[in-house]
Amino acid sequence: MADSDPAHGLEHVQRVVRNVCLIARKLVNSSSCASTREVDVEVLLPAAWFHDCVYVPKNSAQRSEASRLAADRAVVVLTDIGYPAVKFPAIAHAIEAHSFSAQIPCRSLEAQVLQDADRLEALGAIGLARCLMTGGSMGQRLYHPEDPFPTAREPRDDQQSVDHFFAKLLKLPSTMQTDAGKQIASERAGYLVAFLEQLAKEIGVPIQLPSEFRGLQNGALG
Amino acid sequence: MADSDPAHGLEHVQRVVRNVCLIARKLVNSSSCASTREVDVEVLLPAAWFHDCVYVPKNSAQRSEASRLAADRAVVVLTDIGYPAVKFPAIAHAIEAHSFSAQIPCRSLEAQVLQDADRLEALGAIGLARCLMTGGSMGQRLYHPEDPFPTAREPRDDQQSVDHFFAKLLKLPSTMQTDAGKQIASERAGYLVAFLEQLAKEIGVPIQLPSEFRGLQNGALG
Repeated sequence: MADSDPAHGLEHVQRVVRNVCLIARKLVNSSSCASTREVDVEVLLPAAWFHDCVYVPKNSAQRSEASRLAADRAVVVLTDIGYPAVKFPAIAHAIEAHSFSAQIPCRSLEAQVLQDADRLEALGAIGLARCLMTGGSMGQRLYHPEDPFPTAREPRDDQQSVDHFFAKLLKLPSTMQTDAGKQIASERAGYLVAFLEQLAKEIGVPIQLPSEFRGLQNGALG
Repeated sequence: MADSDPAHGLEHVQRVVRNVCLIARKLVNSSSCASTREVDVEVLLPAAWFHDCVYVPKNSAQRSEASRLAADRAVVVLTDIGYPAVKFPAIAHAIEAHSFSAQIPCRSLEAQVLQDADRLEALGAIGLARCLMTGGSMGQRLYHPEDPFPTAREPRDDQQSVDHFFAKLLKLPSTMQTDAGKQIASERAGYLVAFLEQLAKEIGVPIQLPSEFRGLQNGALG
């Protein structure tokens, strides 16, 4: 794990572990799910702790292999510490399927929960901070000076950090796999919308969200 | 003006012009000020537009001279366009005194308004974005993994972006020169506190603000 990558340090892993617990608790408390879908925490927790245990840089040709490599490595380490081997296939699947770039469909609830938990990292105060810090590290502008909230143009998130909200971040709630993940994602996307609204107020440029994102406004925070 | 410096591009100048207008309007509408303190917009507006017209990098030995150089340059340009020369001394003073590093006391209301307007750039959604983008460009962490909201240690804003809130940003409202500037600064510092509170919630670490900053919580946004 590279210390120099703010998006994937130990704090990221700790937050994803926290997120899987948040989602799992909501699933258990939801009467529609509890009877039919049980989360196996003996799969979910080690999967969350080890999900990024092999680091592959974003620009590497091996990037889409990172989650498979992490799954293999997790099994080696868990074997060393005598973790019950019966859980290994499910742990390995959750790890390899959590990654967007691996393009492996989730076959288990634990894989779905881990994928949702990892995606929550792009939303809320954490997601805002990660987006802006990454933008800063790439020398981006905060917003397009003539059209801060892209209306008359396609978002260019290689140039402006605010454009990344429209190109990707605000679309994440609709990609969540579990109802609990979707609920938290919608609340935290609402926080991002509130940031855009405050920014709009400060720079004196009205913001009109595309219709697909309007349901995210004024969401309660979670 | 360097395009590569996100903190001092043309958008910064446009926002400072907007901020001086916000502050001036509040001063005019305040019955306690209107009769005794009139803002000269023929001084204030050109001062705001030209306040950063000479760029000196932060690490240059000439840095503390930047506002004096900008004042000189503003007078040259305003002379060229035939702007009334009677305003030049006041415009030049407002520009040279707006900068913290110049250490020139503000002798006029226009200088006070410009200094306040420039400091508002470090608060609110804009201030949050500038802080995080600068932190990202310097390869900082977002927060200290063991003590995210510095309680048992001195803030180190060369290492963690969140520490900059405690070392500098939340102290800014008390440095404002005008009542109107102080009011807007308190509201926008409240936005920064709300970000810290949301972050605390997401990472599951309680936040206890030092007593000097508690008045900034739950402020209405401006």
